[in-house]
Amino acid sequence: MTLEVSVNLPDKTYKVLIHRGLIHHLGNRLSRIWRPGKVAVISDSTVGPLYQDQVIRQLRTAGFPATSLKVPAGESSKSWETAVTLYRALIDHHFTRSDGIVALGGGVIGDLAGFVASTYMRGIAFVQVPTSLLAQVDSSVGGKTAVNLDTGKNIVGTFYQPDAVFIDPDTLETLPDRYIAEGYAEIVKMSALSGGSFWETTGQIHHPEDIVARAEVLIQKSVAFKARIVIADEKESGLRQILNFGHTIGHAIELQAKGTLAHGEAISIGMARLSQLFENYGLTESGTSRSLIQRLQEVGLPLDSSLIGTSDFYHKIISDKKNHGGRLNLVYLKKPGEPALYPVPTDRLQLFFSGKNSLES
Amino acid sequence: MTLEVSVNLPDKTYKVLIHRGLIHHLGNRLSRIWRPGKVAVISDSTVGPLYQDQVIRQLRTAGFPATSLKVPAGESSKSWETAVTLYRALIDHHFTRSDGIVALGGGVIGDLAGFVASTYMRGIAFVQVPTSLLAQVDSSVGGKTAVNLDTGKNIVGTFYQPDAVFIDPDTLETLPDRYIAEGYAEIVKMSALSGGSFWETTGQIHHPEDIVARAEVLIQKSVAFKARIVIADEKESGLRQILNFGHTIGHAIELQAKGTLAHGEAISIGMARLSQLFENYGLTESGTSRSLIQRLQEVGLPLDSSLIGTSDFYHKIISDKKNHGGRLNLVYLKKPGEPALYPVPTDRLQLFFSGKNSLES
Repeated sequence: MTLEVSVNLPDKTYKVLIHRGLIHHLGNRLSRIWRPGKVAVISDSTVGPLYQDQVIRQLRTAGFPATSLKVPAGESSKSWETAVTLYRALIDHHFTRSDGIVALGGGVIGDLAGFVASTYMRGIAFVQVPTSLLAQVDSSVGGKTAVNLDTGKNIVGTFYQPDAVFIDPDTLETLPDRYIAEGYAEIVKMSALSGGSFWETTGQIHHPEDIVARAEVLIQKSVAFKARIVIADEKESGLRQILNFGHTIGHAIELQAKGTLAHGEAISIGMARLSQLFENYGLTESGTSRSLIQRLQEVGLPLDSSLIGTSDFYHKIISDKKNHGGRLNLVYLKKPGEPALYPVPTDRLQLFFSGKNSLES
Repeated sequence: MTLEVSVNLPDKTYKVLIHRGLIHHLGNRLSRIWRPGKVAVISDSTVGPLYQDQVIRQLRTAGFPATSLKVPAGESSKSWETAVTLYRALIDHHFTRSDGIVALGGGVIGDLAGFVASTYMRGIAFVQVPTSLLAQVDSSVGGKTAVNLDTGKNIVGTFYQPDAVFIDPDTLETLPDRYIAEGYAEIVKMSALSGGSFWETTGQIHHPEDIVARAEVLIQKSVAFKARIVIADEKESGLRQILNFGHTIGHAIELQAKGTLAHGEAISIGMARLSQLFENYGLTESGTSRSLIQRLQEVGLPLDSSLIGTSDFYHKIISDKKNHGGRLNLVYLKKPGEPALYPVPTDRLQLFFSGKNSLES
């Protein structure tokens, strides 16, 4: 079974293909969308050893002079310094605008390789092959790229759409439960924003094994939902903001936790805390938080953190790039399937998070 | 007299305004296109002292909380390291996606500030106020941004269109003749590509003073010509390549000269050498080189360099980002107004530049 989602943007149309075993047919798939040219397969020290050699062989068989580029695994590779090592490698291999980059790995590789593809010679061709659940359902779709500065995550980046996203759910077999669960946090988020049958589907997941067993449909529903939002608002000037549900708090504590919280774990905490808060304020329909938290809890995701509410927490929130001119647009659910924005002036954030704000509605 | 050129791109439409004294009305002009929000005026240690304080005052009067950011003058500021100091300053001033950047300076400032605007939080609003002739007629229009790596000029960059370009020809009064002439090299280039009345206009320029005296019309014709090309091919996949006339050689010797040749001087040499070569090969109409070279020579531009033909020269040419899959598309003139591309395989470059290649046509 091949599931397919089309992302039709004003400038570009591309497909997200979801198929078990797809990683063994990348050469073939790529030759349908790219003319022969050099290809750099960018991967990391965790994912590279699993797939990179095989992928390189396939690409060569399909007529692409393919080069393997590896970076160390981990968030610290999402840096300008690593980007420069990649630019240099591309220059050394005489890569030009006729050539392309394949990102083979999780979110860090996708963001980093995407940033390099979008800026090397002002942009060369780019394909995503996400191998973590988080990247498959979220970061590989939508065209966001980034490198980190030490002052903040994703402060520097571009919007740059890939030519295709190839997703092989079989790559999840080697992923530890913790990283299955963190990817699932984004799936729960999208099902909560979407409501309807997608929300019901996440209601049927009770263990990490359920996620892997139903990976294809979960990925397909997530990608289709995200694509719909991205198509409506590619550059995040309006609707796309709803995808930040749980992310304002999440980013702040993820930064504070300095690597001990995975992104999806921080988002889980952000959603749990925020939906309780909005339910207490009476803006979220009663019982919604409980259903949401149950979904997160059943797969072992964390729901709270002592990092929330510290002065560093507020400082990080104010520096968030979703801060628009002194107001932070927080995403909440009226109920599943009905997201909304609630603007909080940054000088009232502390009051708001204390639960004691009197809300203007 | 205000001259105006509209740049209508699929995603964005913006205006280039050319008006003597415009720099004294920036606050007013900006308030017609931007809602009130923070503005960072990025300038350098040469241009900043001339205009920055005045511009900041005007912007504040017009309701923009304006901040002045300065970088050292010179090509070495077109670097990632300088970009990071600007990102940090924007973070410190809590700049968000609702805020904007004004580039006040020459090509280095435009490229650098444009790169920062295009990548800070994945893109914030951006206006160009070019103060050198080179930036006014060329780099401020078309949306190219860049920072340099030590391995090459403009290897890293983006395509990112400004919201407006405000050109005040009076800023040329403080520019030394050498930099008037180098900007004029790009004007001659565009008049040669354009032909017709524009080519005739450059035929009437015999001294650097003529350039300043007729700056408005020369800038307007250049911008209008460049805009037409950029509109037809924003991302440089086809027609836009003709703007590289003289640039393949030019970039290579500019890099080798390590700052002793100005960009426009290198381009002058590139055009002179290349048009002679193509005229010798019989592809350029007889007499064209002479007319072209005369225009360059009369304002004191250099026409040749011993850097051409060294092994470093060939190495740099092959690394040029206009190298497409082992072929270099050289731009030549059949005659003024009729540019064409001639692809040279990179392994025959040396033969080609020796003048001994037998051309396939």
